Amino acid sequence: MSDASDVLKANGAFYAAFAAGDFAAMAALWSETAPVACIHPGGPPLAGRDLVMESWRDILASPHRPQIRHHADQAFLFGEAAFVICYEALEGGFLVATNVYVREQGRWRMTHHQAGPAPPPARPGRAAGTVH
Amino acid sequence: MSDASDVLKANGAFYAAFAAGDFAAMAALWSETAPVACIHPGGPPLAGRDLVMESWRDILASPHRPQIRHHADQAFLFGEAAFVICYEALEGGFLVATNVYVREQGRWRMTHHQAGPAPPPARPGRAAGTVH
Repeated sequence: MSDASDVLKANGAFYAAFAAGDFAAMAALWSETAPVACIHPGGPPLAGRDLVMESWRDILASPHRPQIRHHADQAFLFGEAAFVICYEALEGGFLVATNVYVREQGRWRMTHHQAGPAPPPARPGRAAGTVH
Repeated sequence: MSDASDVLKANGAFYAAFAAGDFAAMAALWSETAPVACIHPGGPPLAGRDLVMESWRDILASPHRPQIRHHADQAFLFGEAAFVICYEALEGGFLVATNVYVREQGRWRMTHHQAGPAPPPARPGRAAGTVH
């Protein structure tokens, strides 16, 4: 499996953990050695693993968290780092996300997430995985 | 100068190029070897250097581009990659940005930018440069 496929798989695991409300899986996806940060939609930046994990614990425990479908994932790799851009389709519209990853002992782990408002994608049904 | 200082300096140069409308400086700030992308506020993701540079050429040529002050810059480094989170203060409110960098031949160059809406920062006057 290519590096790009591995990064896209990690990105899929992130949204799967969100959908399942699985905090343990979410916590395991995030780097424990690199510095991490997170910018939830419309929120302030959260810096450091403690704050980021606290935010995910709250979000994943909420029965009101949105259902998100990710699509049009694109992976951008450079050495031991990578980021994925993807659309997040919610009931009320679209977000676009940047998810940054670092390769640790052969495994891609998340070090940053930002999502913000986006126009509807031009081709909502486009298959995930375009790599530049 | 520490790696973190260098990354923060690169981030400052990005906003200086924006303020000056200096396309040549902007083009030189972005990586030419790593894959690049850009998500302007409320816009779709742009992938690849050609599209990203075209967007900056249009934005920097516009007399209507906003005046942006960046502050509360925080650098997050992992190996040859880094990202900076900072607030962007505009006349109409605040954005928060993720700027991703890659170290190429000792120089930090931008590989991704995303900016989206944010609440006013808790401490708008906080000095730039906190590093995690």
